Amino acid sequence: MHNEQLKILTASLTRLLRRGATKQLVNIIKKTHMVDLSTAFKELSADNREKLFKLMDDPEEIGDLFSLLDENLFLEFVKTVEFNKLVDIFDHMPSDDAASLLTLLDEELSDQILSKMQKEESDNVEQLMSYGEDTAGSLMVTDFIALEEDVVAKQVIEALQNKYLDVEMPFYIYVIDEYGKLVGVSSLRQLVVVHPEKPLKEFMAQDLVTVKPYTDREEVARLVSRYDFLAVPVVDDDNKIVGIVTVDDVIDILHEAATEDILKMAGVGEDYIETQTVIKRTWIRLPWLFASFLGGVAAFFIIGGFQESLAKFASLSAFIPVIMGMGGNIGTQSSAITVRGLATGRIVLKDFSQVIFKELAVGLILGVTYGLFIGVIAKLAFASDPFSFPLALAVGLAIVTSMSIAALVGSMVPLVFERLNIDPAVATGPFVTTSIDIVSVYCYFTIASLLLDI
Amino acid sequence: MHNEQLKILTASLTRLLRRGATKQLVNIIKKTHMVDLSTAFKELSADNREKLFKLMDDPEEIGDLFSLLDENLFLEFVKTVEFNKLVDIFDHMPSDDAASLLTLLDEELSDQILSKMQKEESDNVEQLMSYGEDTAGSLMVTDFIALEEDVVAKQVIEALQNKYLDVEMPFYIYVIDEYGKLVGVSSLRQLVVVHPEKPLKEFMAQDLVTVKPYTDREEVARLVSRYDFLAVPVVDDDNKIVGIVTVDDVIDILHEAATEDILKMAGVGEDYIETQTVIKRTWIRLPWLFASFLGGVAAFFIIGGFQESLAKFASLSAFIPVIMGMGGNIGTQSSAITVRGLATGRIVLKDFSQVIFKELAVGLILGVTYGLFIGVIAKLAFASDPFSFPLALAVGLAIVTSMSIAALVGSMVPLVFERLNIDPAVATGPFVTTSIDIVSVYCYFTIASLLLDI
Repeated sequence: MHNEQLKILTASLTRLLRRGATKQLVNIIKKTHMVDLSTAFKELSADNREKLFKLMDDPEEIGDLFSLLDENLFLEFVKTVEFNKLVDIFDHMPSDDAASLLTLLDEELSDQILSKMQKEESDNVEQLMSYGEDTAGSLMVTDFIALEEDVVAKQVIEALQNKYLDVEMPFYIYVIDEYGKLVGVSSLRQLVVVHPEKPLKEFMAQDLVTVKPYTDREEVARLVSRYDFLAVPVVDDDNKIVGIVTVDDVIDILHEAATEDILKMAGVGEDYIETQTVIKRTWIRLPWLFASFLGGVAAFFIIGGFQESLAKFASLSAFIPVIMGMGGNIGTQSSAITVRGLATGRIVLKDFSQVIFKELAVGLILGVTYGLFIGVIAKLAFASDPFSFPLALAVGLAIVTSMSIAALVGSMVPLVFERLNIDPAVATGPFVTTSIDIVSVYCYFTIASLLLDI
Repeated sequence: MHNEQLKILTASLTRLLRRGATKQLVNIIKKTHMVDLSTAFKELSADNREKLFKLMDDPEEIGDLFSLLDENLFLEFVKTVEFNKLVDIFDHMPSDDAASLLTLLDEELSDQILSKMQKEESDNVEQLMSYGEDTAGSLMVTDFIALEEDVVAKQVIEALQNKYLDVEMPFYIYVIDEYGKLVGVSSLRQLVVVHPEKPLKEFMAQDLVTVKPYTDREEVARLVSRYDFLAVPVVDDDNKIVGIVTVDDVIDILHEAATEDILKMAGVGEDYIETQTVIKRTWIRLPWLFASFLGGVAAFFIIGGFQESLAKFASLSAFIPVIMGMGGNIGTQSSAITVRGLATGRIVLKDFSQVIFKELAVGLILGVTYGLFIGVIAKLAFASDPFSFPLALAVGLAIVTSMSIAALVGSMVPLVFERLNIDPAVATGPFVTTSIDIVSVYCYFTIASLLLDI
């Protein structure tokens, strides 16, 4: 469904809910893709979504919905479901979804649900819950197809028709040896093109890319997207396959990771949750602003050191904003370009000096351009003042210096961070703007003092 | 391959190239996944990569490499390949790759290549090249499986083993009616579980999500990631299938789109190419800095209007940087959070007032906190001055005002842009910081004039 259709769906639901047209509503629930229904739920008013939710009955459908909802909506709905029904819902869910949803509940409630779930299912879920939040283990699904080397193509197809009928993503057939170790992989596609009597070991691919349950999920995502895989197998330290991570989860991680950079660069950490309370939001952002606080205090003392100049030329201060602004903005541009270049792989560390040199050149050209503009404005504004020319020159030169240094620092800091194996996005933002502020103000007053001979 | 292994690969290649060990090099080329080899190419020196490239001979492999290289490396290598060989390479490439690479070449060369390519292949490529750069058409592959409704499962499998052996992503079997119109879809998976004599029309799914050749590629990417599809069919206005867009391309688009937001927010446009010349880089960034230039000039005139206050209290200007810095940084945080929330769907327009209210509250709390800090510093710095208390109060209040307004503006602008159907990331950055600079400076001097009674 495109956005237009989603709006129509939400409008129809609202209208039918007002009319209490239960039969039609149940019909819509049944016919609509759960992805779309979950989006419509977000758009409905609290009253309406509770009414609509009460019309849902199938535990599998409810589980599907739960795994698609935002955390706060999920918790809102869970409260309205009776305990036995809740157990039933979790029993019907894929184990990875169940694991991630149960961690959102109170520990007591989640333990109660686990203890009432079917043994095999709850074992799987508990295993998944034991892996760290950002690991392949927490992300993988445990239903996959693993068959021994001697099984022939025809038998594999038979297994798909019986034993593996419920496997969510049956694109790869993993091949294991007699000890259960992963030795190869075949695809559904190969299966239909080989001779029915051929055993797996004769047509499987042997160069496997695998990950461990404790591999970082962003690393997993990079591997899958790099090689255009549909899934990657997760193996334990004995090389036994314990699960697979599929491409649909990878898309979500990559999207999450790329948008995280925006937060990191703005100095908000990386796990900022838009749905948190005001107090928590404040708490997360407080320390990140401390850098600009320190920078501001430093600038205060620097300017204090030039009191004499300011006493003679009060107008000097009127140029502080434009000098800080131009420096700060070009610095942000340079670091954004570098962070993004590193993220997309278009910039590699080998290019260090080339990247920095080019940015410095850009900063210099733009600095001269805007330095001229602002110099002219300064000259005109103080045309009657005998010091108008040296003042204009000082302001112009300060812009050139500030913008060049800003472009240099803005591009260098992410590269240095990358080389030191620190995430270049994480502290680039506050670090860059703050240091540029200080340097800009210092250079400006130094140049002005020299040229105005104070 | 993980990063460690890639470093080892690059080191081995460099060593073997120095020794001129052709045989081992050819062996490595053959055994290494092209994705890894293309990364190694980027890391090698210009000399070494030219030597290594000369060792490659298979046109299919070279085509594969070309489609993985950055634009500048691709153009570098193309120059070293003889014309007939080049035609051969493009003949062996998937048509979507050939189309996007040919657009990078001089028009003359690309026309010459197209005229020498096999007719059917060059027709496909020219068709793809005719679609706009950011559309589904430019992205789709034209090899897909389309069979009529009456074909039975067994025959489909036979077709896969013969006619469709070369199809890149054979996960979906598209079903067409006698007029060639798309009427349903089945999956490879269903195919192996149904009775061999069942015709497609009896087990195909009929609720299809399709896109048009001119659908925006980001819209296509959203659909694929939304529904966890492996591919989405592209149909013309007569509902005839003309191609498919596959999940691996979608990953790239989503990644590109998410990292684009970083650029947009920093005011660098969205198509910034890290590999461009200095002049082009300068040209792209010049207009985006104009906003901060105008803002700076406005601030200059505002401060000019308070000359009297400044003449009496020159120290007022020493607080300009900290007030601007704190406002600017919290404003950037707020807009980054909102832009990202809109991109990930965690913030929807319906929450407009709630989002803004929460941000305002955060701004107020943080403003009071840092306002107190800076007020105390001001009081201590001017302890001997009789005006130290009103001065400290003015500075503290200016911080509170500036940070609150910044949080408000920072969160409101992206939401307003979204409502007006303007990309919230595109002008949020420069717009937000510049307007915050002006407002901060104005509020500061107004408050100071009032409290210090000037």
